[in-house]
Amino acid sequence: MSSQIKTSPSRPRKARDVQQWDRETDVAIVGFGGAGGCAAIEAADAGSSVIIFEVASASGGSTAMSSAEIYMGGSGGTRVQKACGFEDQTEDMVTYMMMSAGPQADEEKIRNYCENSQGHFEWLVDIGVPFKDSFHKERGIMCLTDDGLLVTGSEKAYPFAQQAEPCPRGHNLYVEGDNGGPLFMKIVTENVDRRDAISVEYETRALTLIVDDDDAVIGLVIRADQKELNVRARKGVILCAGGFVMNEEMVAKYAPMLAAGNTPIGNPGDTGTGIMMGMSVGGAAINMHEGFISIPYYPPASMTRGIVINDQSQRFINEDVYHGRLGAFVLRQQSERIYFILTVEQYADYERVSYMGAEVAGTGESVQELEEELGLREGTLQQTIKVYNEDCNKGEDTQCHKAAEWLEPLKPPLVALDITPGRGTFLPYFTLGGLDTLPTGEVVNPQRQQVPGLYAAGRTACGVVRTAAGYSSGMSVGDATFSGRLAGKQAAQRKDA
Amino acid sequence: MSSQIKTSPSRPRKARDVQQWDRETDVAIVGFGGAGGCAAIEAADAGSSVIIFEVASASGGSTAMSSAEIYMGGSGGTRVQKACGFEDQTEDMVTYMMMSAGPQADEEKIRNYCENSQGHFEWLVDIGVPFKDSFHKERGIMCLTDDGLLVTGSEKAYPFAQQAEPCPRGHNLYVEGDNGGPLFMKIVTENVDRRDAISVEYETRALTLIVDDDDAVIGLVIRADQKELNVRARKGVILCAGGFVMNEEMVAKYAPMLAAGNTPIGNPGDTGTGIMMGMSVGGAAINMHEGFISIPYYPPASMTRGIVINDQSQRFINEDVYHGRLGAFVLRQQSERIYFILTVEQYADYERVSYMGAEVAGTGESVQELEEELGLREGTLQQTIKVYNEDCNKGEDTQCHKAAEWLEPLKPPLVALDITPGRGTFLPYFTLGGLDTLPTGEVVNPQRQQVPGLYAAGRTACGVVRTAAGYSSGMSVGDATFSGRLAGKQAAQRKDA
Repeated sequence: MSSQIKTSPSRPRKARDVQQWDRETDVAIVGFGGAGGCAAIEAADAGSSVIIFEVASASGGSTAMSSAEIYMGGSGGTRVQKACGFEDQTEDMVTYMMMSAGPQADEEKIRNYCENSQGHFEWLVDIGVPFKDSFHKERGIMCLTDDGLLVTGSEKAYPFAQQAEPCPRGHNLYVEGDNGGPLFMKIVTENVDRRDAISVEYETRALTLIVDDDDAVIGLVIRADQKELNVRARKGVILCAGGFVMNEEMVAKYAPMLAAGNTPIGNPGDTGTGIMMGMSVGGAAINMHEGFISIPYYPPASMTRGIVINDQSQRFINEDVYHGRLGAFVLRQQSERIYFILTVEQYADYERVSYMGAEVAGTGESVQELEEELGLREGTLQQTIKVYNEDCNKGEDTQCHKAAEWLEPLKPPLVALDITPGRGTFLPYFTLGGLDTLPTGEVVNPQRQQVPGLYAAGRTACGVVRTAAGYSSGMSVGDATFSGRLAGKQAAQRKDA
Repeated sequence: MSSQIKTSPSRPRKARDVQQWDRETDVAIVGFGGAGGCAAIEAADAGSSVIIFEVASASGGSTAMSSAEIYMGGSGGTRVQKACGFEDQTEDMVTYMMMSAGPQADEEKIRNYCENSQGHFEWLVDIGVPFKDSFHKERGIMCLTDDGLLVTGSEKAYPFAQQAEPCPRGHNLYVEGDNGGPLFMKIVTENVDRRDAISVEYETRALTLIVDDDDAVIGLVIRADQKELNVRARKGVILCAGGFVMNEEMVAKYAPMLAAGNTPIGNPGDTGTGIMMGMSVGGAAINMHEGFISIPYYPPASMTRGIVINDQSQRFINEDVYHGRLGAFVLRQQSERIYFILTVEQYADYERVSYMGAEVAGTGESVQELEEELGLREGTLQQTIKVYNEDCNKGEDTQCHKAAEWLEPLKPPLVALDITPGRGTFLPYFTLGGLDTLPTGEVVNPQRQQVPGLYAAGRTACGVVRTAAGYSSGMSVGDATFSGRLAGKQAAQRKDA
């Protein structure tokens, strides 16, 4: 009669209801993206047999869709950082990442990440991930050249630069164009395929976990070829099934802030099933309200010389921050319109290279004319630009603390772009909440007691990166690959259940 | 050996580990505040036997500590609303509550609340809760007179008033002073005591739920007189154990926004155990990041005529909103200081009646002098007040949309209060996340499937009120008492498990 009972990730199967084990392995991994692949390699290298179950017909996950920058540094600097002339202190990296993660920061996890980041770089190089010893100077969302290093966050911007020495930490794969993700997953997949201890089952959906009488996880139920099969995992199950950005209902319920976005970033499997499976056996899901939500306003880098205002003509953010931080602050305004004000030269740059999709809301031969055209209250935009231009001339942004290198008076004629959420501008988003884990990847319940036999990594877990306002490119793939490795190692060393 | 196993709300007990049932009842209720009391009355009146387990030595919970305003209206108006000359349309109440709850609103729950609010008023009157048919005109955080009705939210303020016809919905008990909470709980307790079907066990801690082999909730473990006892609840367990504001670790993990607050509002039992018990059996906890966090800047009502600015001299909120909404917007600023700017007359009022605790940051015989004293950039405060005063003279706040009745030019000498979070100002807070429930009070898992035998109400559940920015006084006690009643009725009509 089991076919009449709907198998759901929210309800674990009991061991006593298992008629037979259709597969047996030491470690079972759900999902073959960056986290799952790295977990498998480490578990196999520690002597375990591994099966990866992947719902798609190929490896990749969201990592393959990303630029696959990897956020690394500290301990004096990676090989690439050093070659490019940067010295990176671990404490600066810790401070930056703690500020980024906000009050919900997991300091233990962040310290572990930063202190072992150098080692993570070396491990990646060892498995064959190539990084060129060259620095990409230009401000961009991703690196379209094959340069190995770039600034990918708000390190050089207020308030971060005032508390942590800035250093570029975005490591970009040695490949032209935005092709880091596919290359990265190709390398990881080759590493997986090379290891006899790992087998991969594609087009296989993980349905639910299997628990014994003490609620320890001892396996999982999968569906392949339209059959439900029971998998025994002697050492444990590692959930690397991505986040929940593709599950509209979950996003609405848990991360309402993301309702303002218009383009979910992730693969179709990011439906939150990994997180729900973890919750079903008592795992705590934390930080579920947070996500990356961005207005990707650069390139062109010259946009950074423009200003962003609300419908009171107020600036509210230093425009040299990471684009996700600008997105987060736009959402905090009680304002019916948000504008990006540019000179015509900056607008020419924008027209040439931007993919932000914002439309022109107004133009003006003078500030006053633009103010009128935008329907802003008389005198307000004039005052904002007067103050801003004076500050530019003095080389100090007294109001929003944009760094001096970006300060250049706004001389009419001016153009205003409408970047109000919901009015056409590209607003990509993804989730940053997931299962609470120890730095080892072991899933814990709300009282931080372990759920025996269960591990999580990547976006199924809640990792080092926790806020829209503090996100930097490379933190997610950095966290996924690093946390995947730790979970793989930890599971492999567990005594068989 | 069971004494060696630590009983934890995060781990349910299995029925097979129960040696004997020490208590048997139809419905077991955890917590005797407003929600638990109302649940018990309804369950008993529907024919069930009930035991309430309360950790404190008396009933009360956080309801008794509150002002116990109750947010009610719609269907043309309650007896009090009508007597005071207000007609309240259900759709206006729905619209206001939907806006208040933000994108995470539970429309089904809100509609149910509003459509049955009139009936809830009548039920309260029936059990003996007294309301005087009089309207309290003055703007205040609570009603210190015995008047029965007042405006307790942002109904009359932008952007709410533009979309829903404003109506006062805060119903205040017929008692002088801030004594509604104790009176309310006295009446509820008398009702409970009067019913033979209900027994109450005080100084009794609920430790964990008991589940059968199908994970249905069939009872709970309690500790009384230093003994662990097993309680069989034939129809179900209703969790009415409050929120988690007193659990620092949980607040840090789930509701980091509240880290800015300095005064948790709740009773010592608000440690989240009810929510954790629900999660332990698969219940979804939602909206966990949200809470009430407020800068209670009125009374005096004349403060509403002042303006609030950040360190760029920018106004960012209409000062006629509910104090919690102001608190929420203060937290959204990237600003090192937040000031409340007042005339000396308004300041005299403030000194006389406020309990906000904000210190004077500066004074000025002119705006320019105040600007200098606060270290604001030259010209910025002058511009803000110039625009504001011009708008006041024209009777329209073009920038923040404060209602005309509060617009009065700010004439020097002026005083600035420092209301920056963390600098002494009173910043009370409590949590608004909890177990996801159907409008009936039935707890559901992340896929909205019911957890059989489990109900939740009050702050243990996630109710109609969901955001700091949209909170109104009376919504929490309103929700607790209403949701408690529904859960009590629903549990009573369940077939015995």
